[in-house]
Amino acid sequence: MSATTSSVPPSTPPPTIPPIRSPKPSDLMKTVEWSDDGKVVMIDQTKLPNELVYVTYDDYRDVAQAIKNLVVRGAPAIGVSGAFGLALAARQSGASDAPQLLRDLRTASTVLAATRPTAVNLKWGLEKIMRVAEDAAASSDNASPVPVVRAVTDAAMRMASDDIEANLAMGRNGAALFSDSDTIMTHCNAGALATVAYGTALGVIRAVRDSGKTISVIATETRPVQQGSRLTAFELKHDGIDVSIIPDTAVGYSMANGLVDRVVVGADRILRTGHVYNKIGTYQVATMARQHGIPFYVAAPLSTFDMDSAPGDVVIEQRSPDEVTSVGGRRTAPAGIGVINPAFDMTPPELVSGIITERGVAAPPYGESIPRLFVAANF
Amino acid sequence: MSATTSSVPPSTPPPTIPPIRSPKPSDLMKTVEWSDDGKVVMIDQTKLPNELVYVTYDDYRDVAQAIKNLVVRGAPAIGVSGAFGLALAARQSGASDAPQLLRDLRTASTVLAATRPTAVNLKWGLEKIMRVAEDAAASSDNASPVPVVRAVTDAAMRMASDDIEANLAMGRNGAALFSDSDTIMTHCNAGALATVAYGTALGVIRAVRDSGKTISVIATETRPVQQGSRLTAFELKHDGIDVSIIPDTAVGYSMANGLVDRVVVGADRILRTGHVYNKIGTYQVATMARQHGIPFYVAAPLSTFDMDSAPGDVVIEQRSPDEVTSVGGRRTAPAGIGVINPAFDMTPPELVSGIITERGVAAPPYGESIPRLFVAANF
Repeated sequence: MSATTSSVPPSTPPPTIPPIRSPKPSDLMKTVEWSDDGKVVMIDQTKLPNELVYVTYDDYRDVAQAIKNLVVRGAPAIGVSGAFGLALAARQSGASDAPQLLRDLRTASTVLAATRPTAVNLKWGLEKIMRVAEDAAASSDNASPVPVVRAVTDAAMRMASDDIEANLAMGRNGAALFSDSDTIMTHCNAGALATVAYGTALGVIRAVRDSGKTISVIATETRPVQQGSRLTAFELKHDGIDVSIIPDTAVGYSMANGLVDRVVVGADRILRTGHVYNKIGTYQVATMARQHGIPFYVAAPLSTFDMDSAPGDVVIEQRSPDEVTSVGGRRTAPAGIGVINPAFDMTPPELVSGIITERGVAAPPYGESIPRLFVAANF
Repeated sequence: MSATTSSVPPSTPPPTIPPIRSPKPSDLMKTVEWSDDGKVVMIDQTKLPNELVYVTYDDYRDVAQAIKNLVVRGAPAIGVSGAFGLALAARQSGASDAPQLLRDLRTASTVLAATRPTAVNLKWGLEKIMRVAEDAAASSDNASPVPVVRAVTDAAMRMASDDIEANLAMGRNGAALFSDSDTIMTHCNAGALATVAYGTALGVIRAVRDSGKTISVIATETRPVQQGSRLTAFELKHDGIDVSIIPDTAVGYSMANGLVDRVVVGADRILRTGHVYNKIGTYQVATMARQHGIPFYVAAPLSTFDMDSAPGDVVIEQRSPDEVTSVGGRRTAPAGIGVINPAFDMTPPELVSGIITERGVAAPPYGESIPRLFVAANF
């Protein structure tokens, strides 16, 4: 293992980061980035909210482990992490020609893709980088591996900066849907920590605040991994946005008691029909929102859309029972019982009020509005 | 403080308890009981599922603390615990006449009632014992306190045995609503551990099994206090009933994927209109059940009904933020954020398929069926 940890990012700002007021990409806390000396630097999200630890990887297999173990999570962030993993693999490869390098990259891509099968951005990021590698190999007549390494690294870095730009655009597009003095519920963490920076759902929330509206946020705890209390509450408090957490059991109570004006969540995969795959629990938040006439929005970049699959095709990962039977190493359930621990659930399009993307907001019927987002998108 | 703890109940069966096959009251594991030497013995439920510890109290103020700290919880169990608390208070009182004893009992009743304001059984249990005390004082011409002490103790012990009988009757009444090979979802713990023994919702599940049907149970974890994974899973595994736990976020997934045939939960308070107050999260389980056409039953004894209040009258306790911001002593949320931590929520009657009581099953419309349960009930 060649991962190293430090309490400060080696080539990034010090750990006391100023609140994000002005959404300039260079100012934003980065969840994952490429260091000047050709390594991948990530915030170790398993340590939050107690410690802000940055970890540095120079082996793509460690990046794969990091994705699997939720050191980095969130669909856009793992898409970019996969791309950076391929950039590491290109540097690690001892290949003397481009075809051998491509074979090494294909192996690395398979290892990286296997870590999280449901989030479509990972597959999208890996495929995009592999196409870049193949094009670079072809245009260098398959001779030297050097231009391929450079092309892969550049493309991964561009993907990271595109992610930030997409989130800022999503924020601009979504902010108009929210009103002054809204209390906004969100589930899981679709924040800066789920992306390279700024966030999808939390990017929209940041943009609402940055547009001058006063808002409050209710974050669900999001068991079993508690991304809501650990990560969303951490991010929003860091940015000076009023945030309260609730147990996942209190969604209905909060809505029935008039505490919620709107809901916005992220997504791990969206089908062309508007079916949304997101963190387990999203479906019941959406159902309760519909029950109480509360608008329910999804914020996600175009890289989250899977235009090929039908609802029956999508495999929902089952995660380790340990996430449910113990908390912080302490058992909270007896040994020898069954556990059902799906990572995601599916929210049907009829519960979704709008899908906020970097190219505009898709409204129902999604079978028409989603394909329109892709028209003229050079994607 | 005069509480003592031991790993075996001083006057009850050894800790290796045989599975409950035959529902004879004397065979059942007791959550709370009166010892031969005039003390209250309880299972310390905060230690489950890791340790089965019995705790003995001889001071009613310790019983009040135990109710407040969830050493004992569950509406019927705290009703009986309150009654036993008054029996202790009667023994503790140095009163030389009945009027002084009644004053001491009223003080104790106030202390005990303040511990958990939402669960109606506690108030019911305390009021019932106070009436017994007043009657005994009146019929002894307010002279000696001795007959009052005896009457209070006898009434509390009768309340405990009545609770078991009610649960066995509820089981018989409810079992017919369930089918062979059903998977039954339950929320929180309405089990032996929420009552004196056998349980309400879990009593019905035990009775379904005891009637020869093969069933499986899906227990929600029930954050923040995790009564589902800690207590329900413990009880059902102990009794050899197949049980799986899910995070509270996976209720919708489980129902959408056809894993749930029926739901049964307990209640902390039921109004004459059929509005059900139960553990936070019940309302969203009921809503998801309705969404998927799954019958949703409530099992509760008549002592849970509040025939006087309207929905707007019921105060829902807010519990400590610590329950949500840390687990097992480890912080899972940043400091300085808000927390909303209601103990209960309200499920409206239109989501309830039936209410199983010791006097039969009430069906909609509840405004008619619930009052009928009380006709001829000497309650």
